[in-house]
Amino acid sequence: MRQIRRCTRPGSPVVLGIGDDCALLRARPGEEIAVTTDLNIDGRHFRLDWHRPQSVGHRTLARGLSDLAAMGARPLAAFVSLGLPPALTRPGRGGVSWMSRFYDGLLALAESSGVSLAGGDLAESPVALADIVLVGAVPRGKALLRSGARPGDDLYVTGSLGGSAAALAHIAARAASVSALRIPASRSRKLDPHLYPQPRLRQGAWLRTRSAASSAIDISDGLSTDLAHICEESRVSAELDAAAIPLAPGATLEQALHGGEDYELLFAARPVQRIPAQIAGVSVTRIGRAVSRRSGRPAVTLLTAGNSRPLEPRGWQHFS
Amino acid sequence: MRQIRRCTRPGSPVVLGIGDDCALLRARPGEEIAVTTDLNIDGRHFRLDWHRPQSVGHRTLARGLSDLAAMGARPLAAFVSLGLPPALTRPGRGGVSWMSRFYDGLLALAESSGVSLAGGDLAESPVALADIVLVGAVPRGKALLRSGARPGDDLYVTGSLGGSAAALAHIAARAASVSALRIPASRSRKLDPHLYPQPRLRQGAWLRTRSAASSAIDISDGLSTDLAHICEESRVSAELDAAAIPLAPGATLEQALHGGEDYELLFAARPVQRIPAQIAGVSVTRIGRAVSRRSGRPAVTLLTAGNSRPLEPRGWQHFS
Repeated sequence: MRQIRRCTRPGSPVVLGIGDDCALLRARPGEEIAVTTDLNIDGRHFRLDWHRPQSVGHRTLARGLSDLAAMGARPLAAFVSLGLPPALTRPGRGGVSWMSRFYDGLLALAESSGVSLAGGDLAESPVALADIVLVGAVPRGKALLRSGARPGDDLYVTGSLGGSAAALAHIAARAASVSALRIPASRSRKLDPHLYPQPRLRQGAWLRTRSAASSAIDISDGLSTDLAHICEESRVSAELDAAAIPLAPGATLEQALHGGEDYELLFAARPVQRIPAQIAGVSVTRIGRAVSRRSGRPAVTLLTAGNSRPLEPRGWQHFS
Repeated sequence: MRQIRRCTRPGSPVVLGIGDDCALLRARPGEEIAVTTDLNIDGRHFRLDWHRPQSVGHRTLARGLSDLAAMGARPLAAFVSLGLPPALTRPGRGGVSWMSRFYDGLLALAESSGVSLAGGDLAESPVALADIVLVGAVPRGKALLRSGARPGDDLYVTGSLGGSAAALAHIAARAASVSALRIPASRSRKLDPHLYPQPRLRQGAWLRTRSAASSAIDISDGLSTDLAHICEESRVSAELDAAAIPLAPGATLEQALHGGEDYELLFAARPVQRIPAQIAGVSVTRIGRAVSRRSGRPAVTLLTAGNSRPLEPRGWQHFS
């Protein structure tokens, strides 16, 4: 961990970083502490033969930051526990180890997101894995929860959906047609939604600061599954307007509904609440509404031209 | 995670537990947040064929709690990310899964330590692993650090050392002599130091409240290695009196020096500081002193009758 000691910056909420039994963080008076952990394992959440280490590092941190964004929390610090086969810790091509490139990707996103890596653990493991922990802060009682939506609220998403699934389908198709897949090192508009997703921290903070959202979640498992979480926790049902769902370039409606890993925000707002077309440079689209729960009514109904059907939560089980 | 939702108790620092994007915790005004993460992997930190799941759950949480104890922090909440082969999540003998028994062991220690399990993650993994995260709180600027020891300070340990290594040696010897090892389900004075170690939260809090220690660490890697950490961070050297080191029943000096996983506290205190023979029911023993660093002087010297030798950090690499 010595190599990443430098990542604690003066003026950061990290009072004491790597090198003692615990890291010490400082929140502001009146803030609550938000904590999220997400486990990423080779073969399930990424594939060593498909994802460059920089992308695995980026995606690992993005997954945790996105949970903070969904609560409207500001990040205080990140922690990552890495389990790696020994070969991945040793210098490879260009004298640089897989682990070092993993940290490059993670730290680049940490830098642009204003969060310090304040600790973690490293152990030998037969399978590559990274458990990411994000600690954030949010004014007491102000966190955006899954449970606040009421019948009549409008439902919105940031950005566009299905881009990660479309990119992954493209990668899988190429992997099937070549003997050794080579994902380009440069960023690509087509693949970035999957390889380098952008967590919506500023959009979550905007909603929280203005008390604009009654409920929020990030779309990690897929719209169908994450909307079902909002419905369950808020005890409402929902109607989605299929034509309104913003599709990422190249994505199908199916990918937008069930693909997951878009890390956009899904939120509800009272009908009187003015929601702008963009928040902090990212588009916001109204995609449906919360309705009251009734026996026999599905949790989520998908409305298409002249038709409606129940939408089952079918969030994608990645690589399984 | 639904099965462990109940673990958030009213009046606990956990405002919002399992079931949203993040858990929400509340510290007291003027407190800093202490965070530690430790990765435990089958074959390195435990063995599925040696350790009962209850012991793995207990040891996983104990490892995290012990880091909080070493800072003098009080626990706010625990989080555990579990990666498990599918078979371990399905009902086994007696209709109960390995995973469920793991949680039994973890939650029993959580209960007796007054900490809630507030979240985590669960994923399929080819190897069994558990990443434990502890979040604690400590009054601003009052945490016990590794870095505060000065030449002349006395060095102390809580409890006795080598008990975990001695118990593990006993288990290993039995495993080598039988085809299928059966660790008894009941507690045993001989094996408990390894299977069910007790983190020293009350002792750490005692030292912190009274500002009695100038430096502290928990003995997870072994006295020789953890004392070297104190020396490095405090920029001192140390002398250990071999005859003073409190050996656990059945333990050798070698096991006490290098065994690790005792989860006792090692701390320094100014010579004028009165340290009682017991803190919160656990014995405390003076084992040496900090001395000034000099070129040519080893970081740690072991003094035996009429002799002295440099003590290299040789903390045990468990199961490797």
